[in-house]
Amino acid sequence: MKMPLTWTVGLSASKDVSPERMVSASVPGNAGLDWALAAGLPDWNFGTNFLEYRFMEDCFWLYEARIPLVELGEDERLYFVACGIDYEYVVLLDGVKLGRHEGMFSRREFLLDEAGGKLLQIWISPPPKDPLAEKDSRAEAAQSVKPAVSYGWDWHPRLIPSGIWEEAYLEKRPADYIKDIQLSYTLNDDFSEACLDLKADIAGSGVLSLTLNGPDGKAVLTMAADETATLKNPRLWWCAGYGEPALYRWEAILSLAGQEKDRKSGQIGFRHLRLSMNEGVWEEAASFPLGRSPVPITVVLNGIPIFAKGSNWVNPEIFTGTINRATYEPLLELAAKANFNLLRCWGGAIVNKDDFFDLCDELGLLVWQEFPLSCNNYRGTPAYLLVLEQEARAIIERLKNRTSLAIWCGGNELFNSWSRMTDQSAALRLLNKLCYELDPGRPFLATSPLCGMAHGNYLFRYQDGREVYEVMPAARHTAYTEFGVPSISNLSCCLMAANEADIFPLKENAVTIAHHAFGAWENDDGTWACLSALNDYFGAADSLTELIELSQWLQGEGYKCIFEEARRQKPYCSMALNWCFNEAWPTLAGNAIVNYPASPKASFADVRDACRPALISARIPKFVWHGGEYFSVGLWLLNDGQEEIAPGSAAVTLRLDGQAYAIMKWDYVAAKPNTNIEGPEVGLALPCLSAGKPREMVLEFEAGVMSSTYRLLYK
Amino acid sequence: MKMPLTWTVGLSASKDVSPERMVSASVPGNAGLDWALAAGLPDWNFGTNFLEYRFMEDCFWLYEARIPLVELGEDERLYFVACGIDYEYVVLLDGVKLGRHEGMFSRREFLLDEAGGKLLQIWISPPPKDPLAEKDSRAEAAQSVKPAVSYGWDWHPRLIPSGIWEEAYLEKRPADYIKDIQLSYTLNDDFSEACLDLKADIAGSGVLSLTLNGPDGKAVLTMAADETATLKNPRLWWCAGYGEPALYRWEAILSLAGQEKDRKSGQIGFRHLRLSMNEGVWEEAASFPLGRSPVPITVVLNGIPIFAKGSNWVNPEIFTGTINRATYEPLLELAAKANFNLLRCWGGAIVNKDDFFDLCDELGLLVWQEFPLSCNNYRGTPAYLLVLEQEARAIIERLKNRTSLAIWCGGNELFNSWSRMTDQSAALRLLNKLCYELDPGRPFLATSPLCGMAHGNYLFRYQDGREVYEVMPAARHTAYTEFGVPSISNLSCCLMAANEADIFPLKENAVTIAHHAFGAWENDDGTWACLSALNDYFGAADSLTELIELSQWLQGEGYKCIFEEARRQKPYCSMALNWCFNEAWPTLAGNAIVNYPASPKASFADVRDACRPALISARIPKFVWHGGEYFSVGLWLLNDGQEEIAPGSAAVTLRLDGQAYAIMKWDYVAAKPNTNIEGPEVGLALPCLSAGKPREMVLEFEAGVMSSTYRLLYK
Repeated sequence: MKMPLTWTVGLSASKDVSPERMVSASVPGNAGLDWALAAGLPDWNFGTNFLEYRFMEDCFWLYEARIPLVELGEDERLYFVACGIDYEYVVLLDGVKLGRHEGMFSRREFLLDEAGGKLLQIWISPPPKDPLAEKDSRAEAAQSVKPAVSYGWDWHPRLIPSGIWEEAYLEKRPADYIKDIQLSYTLNDDFSEACLDLKADIAGSGVLSLTLNGPDGKAVLTMAADETATLKNPRLWWCAGYGEPALYRWEAILSLAGQEKDRKSGQIGFRHLRLSMNEGVWEEAASFPLGRSPVPITVVLNGIPIFAKGSNWVNPEIFTGTINRATYEPLLELAAKANFNLLRCWGGAIVNKDDFFDLCDELGLLVWQEFPLSCNNYRGTPAYLLVLEQEARAIIERLKNRTSLAIWCGGNELFNSWSRMTDQSAALRLLNKLCYELDPGRPFLATSPLCGMAHGNYLFRYQDGREVYEVMPAARHTAYTEFGVPSISNLSCCLMAANEADIFPLKENAVTIAHHAFGAWENDDGTWACLSALNDYFGAADSLTELIELSQWLQGEGYKCIFEEARRQKPYCSMALNWCFNEAWPTLAGNAIVNYPASPKASFADVRDACRPALISARIPKFVWHGGEYFSVGLWLLNDGQEEIAPGSAAVTLRLDGQAYAIMKWDYVAAKPNTNIEGPEVGLALPCLSAGKPREMVLEFEAGVMSSTYRLLYK
Repeated sequence: MKMPLTWTVGLSASKDVSPERMVSASVPGNAGLDWALAAGLPDWNFGTNFLEYRFMEDCFWLYEARIPLVELGEDERLYFVACGIDYEYVVLLDGVKLGRHEGMFSRREFLLDEAGGKLLQIWISPPPKDPLAEKDSRAEAAQSVKPAVSYGWDWHPRLIPSGIWEEAYLEKRPADYIKDIQLSYTLNDDFSEACLDLKADIAGSGVLSLTLNGPDGKAVLTMAADETATLKNPRLWWCAGYGEPALYRWEAILSLAGQEKDRKSGQIGFRHLRLSMNEGVWEEAASFPLGRSPVPITVVLNGIPIFAKGSNWVNPEIFTGTINRATYEPLLELAAKANFNLLRCWGGAIVNKDDFFDLCDELGLLVWQEFPLSCNNYRGTPAYLLVLEQEARAIIERLKNRTSLAIWCGGNELFNSWSRMTDQSAALRLLNKLCYELDPGRPFLATSPLCGMAHGNYLFRYQDGREVYEVMPAARHTAYTEFGVPSISNLSCCLMAANEADIFPLKENAVTIAHHAFGAWENDDGTWACLSALNDYFGAADSLTELIELSQWLQGEGYKCIFEEARRQKPYCSMALNWCFNEAWPTLAGNAIVNYPASPKASFADVRDACRPALISARIPKFVWHGGEYFSVGLWLLNDGQEEIAPGSAAVTLRLDGQAYAIMKWDYVAAKPNTNIEGPEVGLALPCLSAGKPREMVLEFEAGVMSSTYRLLYK
């Protein structure tokens, strides 16, 4: 039986000095938010208000709760259970230390018998900062298992949360109860049988019986602890686009002398997943002297090679304690609606709460899960390795039987020059070892990118002037695990961040820099607003609405170009994940396709269309066209589907200035399952129209559900 | 007290049928050799005699020894100790099974009290063969921890040894004795202090005291078990060319009530070794989309980056049981004489015996040690992983405190298309995990080559017609961990392999194919003799002696080209290891620079000269020159030394047909420690000489100890 506590929280400059004021605290939640509410701090999402929260990163926080008088039966015990406290803390009972912990991902339990009426206190130290790191840089995260993004990123302000960010409660437990259930399985080679293995950790005594219910709710088998059982012809779990994400539910009951003592339940899907070498990779090694072949990165699910389409998932809130199922649900439903089948949970962020994985299981979204290491050199000091091992064990044990969990990964961009970790780094050898020990069947990648894979770019028009249309067809990678095209945010999002007067006409100021419209990167084009590209293409916009529309036009076309080009490069390429899906606060501009909190940009629909199982697609050489020029594109039928597509035809039309120019009717042949068809190069000489503003020129493929449009520019 | 046993051995087609005949057996040794001696089989090194040994790979072998009556004092025990039996065996005492073991690298002990007069039997099963592999292919080694080379290679016949290949003896032990000593240390950042840690595994009781004696033999400290001690200003161990390989010796004495019960001794060197990123690698990543950076492969010893020069070490005998210090000593002394500082112990071979590491410690030769996996896909079946873990643990525990041991490596060419293992392969994840757990401070490479590194080629003139002079300057790799240039073997070696009549004129026949002169590779040039290149360059040779001389001329110049070019590419490149150093039997042709058993080829001197700490070197564009052509080479001063080289001058002369043509005097500036100097491109118009046989044309640099010569061809 779980019992909530009533918490207060206060802050202090030192653990030795009690807070001057205690305020009401939400648990799970964040100390800083509770404080802000009580102290009347303005909304951190707006303007530069977040700067008023910055002082919190140097605070100690004290949580207090009075333990109620709980009547305990014979053999009953009372525990305080903390599922996750962020980040380093001491637990005290009436001033007596019960324990100390560093790390936000571990669950801790404290026995509290006879504690009724006593004061439970949790002192949380200020967020960790690597003393060797540059002050106020993300490198300060490099000796802790704390998400680096909170230390500031090009899409996230520096604002480091502290607090009881996961559930924390009193729990009255009988002598006999279920501490833990691990239900795992192996599938045989043709997936016609699942051999289930049930491990139960039981306190006290009792007989455990587990019933497995099929996706239709009917019981399919029962088994006891430490038993194996065979399930014939399990309904397989498939990721979105490849079949149903069939889930079974199990319920385990602990009985003693015919009496039920405890029960636990959960869900499980049956699927086999491995990484296989991308087609053509083994053969591509050229002449001596000869290096190694790139890594395997094709997800093979239940024997079927998947083209992984998806996005990089980041924290949906700055104050991660507030995240719950209601936060995840609209976002993940959008991810499924985008025809995605895989999310890369980026290593700069938190490892998500259970609700996230429940939803991914249910929606058929595969999860690439990184450990909390990103863009830093996490040095293998003994103190760091100790905490990393403890926290990684907690993460792996919590998630290892998750159906949607596809890949473990050490973290983000660790082998690039800005991080300077290598295969020799103790932290990554440790993570590989722990994953191998605790979850040997699941692939482990040291980082992303690895040999053959690539990250970037993050612009429609590159710094060297080339457009995404030119760069992507020339690239040849096995997986594009990050790429971005920025846009200005939706109007509603912009107005959460700033007053319209501060953002239109759009220019550099404290607010537009804080919300990432300018200065996110050091380059000439003013990321992420990229005003100079917008001005070059379209001229100055007359209104914020127009500016947003033009910017999202570029974003949508850019993303279509990359997703579809990656698909054209199949099977050598097998993965395309844009940077990024969502965001943690209202940005003014950025690469996300969904604005905070869950508002899709216009480009969301473009990405969704580019990720349809089958579509007619164009390889387009450039964005801007002129009268008299010969307009020419390559036709493709992209098919990731598992069904053959019957022969058919697609009408190719160009629409310009109210006119429709019929280019051709492409009669395509049948497309085998999971196979693209390259069609002809088609085009026409563009008419010379009267001068004027740049006009939209729409390339249209009419082919039923496979129809597509591309919006280009005529000048 | 160790007591040898008197062994006999016999063979049988089945474990259930006793051998018809038992013959005297050498231990350590090989069953097949004992049998061959008794049965009068001809020398396996000669002709195709080895074929008469092939049947042995399907034999069961039975070793027998009668346990003598050993008087045991009170508390004394009698053990049978087997340090390594190749490969799968059962131990029986008077027909009662004492144990079963798979794997040749583990030490096993069996308690034999009261066994006096009883018969000890060891049944060895036929060598393992993966049932999924092509018959008689090296792939048959892919589910065992048995060196793959024995299954046949392009320089090694198929001949798979079995037997008691390491020491095996009776041992009378008192109640109190030292089972194991592990003396390890960490050096502080400036190497001025070694913190020693002594772990002792003691049977019974007693007080252990360890004395450490310095390189000069004087005691520097004493310590007890489970103690740490600090050694101030240790004399550091250096690899050859960088300083003295200073070794300390320790002696541990176990005493009880003032009486010595047991003692053990060993050697230890103090050094710090890590792999660092090669210079320029972090910076070389070009534009987006961006992959990962190559792996670090610069050996940094005691803070000094080393240019690793060396060779690939292979089994020095087919019958590995006969290998002992006398086998290793002349070979390793040659390796040191060749100015080598690192040997790559290739994964197709055995993990060498302790004598090998003793000698490498003493000679300053770093060891890159691979596990016994090579050129196969070692599938992660549960049975294989179990044996691999057990054997790898034995290997790591035996070698982890070895001074010379520089790098662990999973095996040879496992990430190439002919092996098809990847970072996901369970066997390699397991090895990485075990090395991290048992020996965390030592670098681990999954295989060679990795990102940035390269293997090959193995010819002077490539299959596409390009010479090594053209290919190598165009290559850009961080480490050349295998490259070969073949030659015909020394006359003495050839005559161990065949009668002269069978090998001159040299042509394909059963003997020349068996001894690798032809058919080693499928290409046009008849590897390894490469007669067509020899004929193209020199015309037909008049004698075997001349053929050998011409062939070794090409080999020597080819190896000089590669070693010196790799050094010119420093610091981006930091390692050059030729394939291979030695060989396991008399070949007629091959890449080795030392013929079986320890006879240097002419090219050995060329390699030795190319690996001097400092030399004047030429970048030469091609081998054959014609009258009237402009002869031109690039001058370099190559300096791996730790001292600055004072300014000086090198006279550049070309000698042709008895004439000396002075090209120039190069006045080079001072060369900083460990830094090369690129000099001018120099040359002259070649005189037109009368027609005739191709003539030797010698390029000579006169510069004292840095003098060099290059022998080219004028036609």
